[in-house]
Amino acid sequence: MIERPRGTRDFEPDEMESRKRLEDLLRKKAEHFGYREILTPTFEHTELFLEKSGPSIVEEIYSFEDKGGRELALRPEFTASVMRMYSENLRGEPKPMKLFYFGPAFRYERPQSGRYREFWHFGTELIGADTARADAENIALAYRCIEDAGLEDFTMRISNLQILEDYLKEFELSHEDREEIYHMLDKEETDDILEKYNIDEEFFKLLDQPFEEVSSFVRESSSYQYLKDVMNHLSYYGIEKDDYVIDLRTVRGLDYYSGVVFEIDAEKLGAQKQICGGGDYNLGDIFGIEVSSKGFAIGFDRLHLALEKENKLSEKERKGFYVIPLGNESIPYSYEVLSQLRENHFKADIDLKDRNIGKALGFADKAGFKYSIIIGEEEVENEEVALKDMKSGDQMSVKKDEIIEAM
Amino acid sequence: MIERPRGTRDFEPDEMESRKRLEDLLRKKAEHFGYREILTPTFEHTELFLEKSGPSIVEEIYSFEDKGGRELALRPEFTASVMRMYSENLRGEPKPMKLFYFGPAFRYERPQSGRYREFWHFGTELIGADTARADAENIALAYRCIEDAGLEDFTMRISNLQILEDYLKEFELSHEDREEIYHMLDKEETDDILEKYNIDEEFFKLLDQPFEEVSSFVRESSSYQYLKDVMNHLSYYGIEKDDYVIDLRTVRGLDYYSGVVFEIDAEKLGAQKQICGGGDYNLGDIFGIEVSSKGFAIGFDRLHLALEKENKLSEKERKGFYVIPLGNESIPYSYEVLSQLRENHFKADIDLKDRNIGKALGFADKAGFKYSIIIGEEEVENEEVALKDMKSGDQMSVKKDEIIEAM
Repeated sequence: MIERPRGTRDFEPDEMESRKRLEDLLRKKAEHFGYREILTPTFEHTELFLEKSGPSIVEEIYSFEDKGGRELALRPEFTASVMRMYSENLRGEPKPMKLFYFGPAFRYERPQSGRYREFWHFGTELIGADTARADAENIALAYRCIEDAGLEDFTMRISNLQILEDYLKEFELSHEDREEIYHMLDKEETDDILEKYNIDEEFFKLLDQPFEEVSSFVRESSSYQYLKDVMNHLSYYGIEKDDYVIDLRTVRGLDYYSGVVFEIDAEKLGAQKQICGGGDYNLGDIFGIEVSSKGFAIGFDRLHLALEKENKLSEKERKGFYVIPLGNESIPYSYEVLSQLRENHFKADIDLKDRNIGKALGFADKAGFKYSIIIGEEEVENEEVALKDMKSGDQMSVKKDEIIEAM
Repeated sequence: MIERPRGTRDFEPDEMESRKRLEDLLRKKAEHFGYREILTPTFEHTELFLEKSGPSIVEEIYSFEDKGGRELALRPEFTASVMRMYSENLRGEPKPMKLFYFGPAFRYERPQSGRYREFWHFGTELIGADTARADAENIALAYRCIEDAGLEDFTMRISNLQILEDYLKEFELSHEDREEIYHMLDKEETDDILEKYNIDEEFFKLLDQPFEEVSSFVRESSSYQYLKDVMNHLSYYGIEKDDYVIDLRTVRGLDYYSGVVFEIDAEKLGAQKQICGGGDYNLGDIFGIEVSSKGFAIGFDRLHLALEKENKLSEKERKGFYVIPLGNESIPYSYEVLSQLRENHFKADIDLKDRNIGKALGFADKAGFKYSIIIGEEEVENEEVALKDMKSGDQMSVKKDEIIEAM
């Protein structure tokens, strides 16, 4: 018995339908915001991901050598690929470019609830606009995606990494030191930071006190003013101060973020609660170009799971028509009815096994059809059908041309 | 400079939009025919593909060992995965099951026009209905998909492998001999067959003569009658004898096909002209189950390419609104207009770079917006906007609440 690989999933029709609905909703949101869909290859040269995320990623990625000796890897996320695509094909396009993507990504991790080895990302990149307005547009789209998907119990945290950078300037720290501090902050290893670096406790007060009470040093800084400007623009989208928290501990933990960053958690998901993360980043160094970008990625599987936990996924509905011809004489006419329904964009099916009426109705019921259409000799003669509601069991005679109106 | 891996593609917004449109059309067709979408993992245990397609597939597949020592491979096609999924999760479901899928598959082959290392398949499986009616349903959906996508210059070839099987029964051939003969037929190596096996020339006459003139031996066979029955059912879908050819040389060249099979070629594509293939198959042996299936797969990239060669892809259209605020005073009002458009499901964007009006209009033009909406002090005061048609250049004042009607 050959089984599905560990950490991967098969999606059956009901779940697939519900995922497709969510995917389409996210796609439409991004399109209304002026973003356009792109797609990059499922695998890239391994080097691309190493350049972006550092050598530690090797432990998590599916890498392999192809038959031509190339070192390839299944993408662990999309941003590196999109920036590779941008630098290869799109540099001459008018900016800003607003791009989005949807597809599977892969990591070799211990499978658990909300964590799979193949998972789906829906994400965006806004390339070439370095303004507070652009940050607000980026954050607002992420927020709208989650909210309009129907999720209620979620928290958005926003920060500006530059505020910490400004503060840390006073201390004698190398670039690497600062990166390590952010990594530690992201992993909540505060004590380790105090122990290893000579940073005063003020720093942690800055992180933990309510945003409105930050020290005047911070309040007068341009980084603080920038964040206020983003917040002001968010209010134009109807996203007010109560809708998120300013949390300077939100640092994303990845070296290429540099300005305003944010994360969204779905509280009902427990340990794997982060469903979205993004912000301002710069990957230009890898490709030798100067370009600022803002983007986010939504963990599609987790968002779907969070909606399921909140009972926000639509109920399965009965749908479509199941045509049951009784006897060989009624077959050509039955196919006419079938074609008529399909051409009018209805789901319609016909008994392919030539079963008796009892078995055929039983199938139509179990397979979730909304109506059965029974066609015997009399129906053919009168250009009618017997339309049976599979939920109520009610049956009525309807003229062939009036089936659609009769529903 | 890190480049895209050889044989793969990036899809830019215009091409992606056109591909999405085709994907949605195929998805809708399948849904109207009562098929439901599923999805399987991008990689499987390599063994699955070896079992299905034989060891020769190894040269073409992307196989690798994961960090847990598993032998995995990127799927070279979907049918093996769908049958694995069926046997693992869906055996108890009411039959027939009608399933479809869309996604990328992978083969290590020399890239050329219409042949890529990552390519997309749209396909179906109809599981558990062993009737001529089911064969006709399968073929009719494939035909409708190609026809309704807009392709004109294509040929569908249909055969029943059983007719050849019946004929070859007279000769003393092992199962393996017969398989080899089919492989040779598929590759048009007729002379090799004559040389290696003691099959009379009558066999090749059978293959080449018009279907209506086949020998009475064949005409009286049940395999011939079955094929006639399928053809009869196809006519119920409006697919008549002129719409396809019966060609007994269509053998698919794969061991698990056993009954009625078909292929569709797009004549304009040259060497890689086959855009669809399918038929009746049985993969039950691999999973120790008895189940008959019928399905097909459409080479999505080739279909898209064929449509492009016939100029059947829709032209790129100007779309959406680009909001240009003039001066800080008009910003909040500009965002109101922006939100109103987005909430009404229009693509709408706002100048994120605070450019002057000339540059902003230049961007709106190059980026393909249909309208610009210019908002200065006067517009804010009068609750109006200046609506500019980006093609004609015409500009008019419109009340804020009447923008949508004004278009």
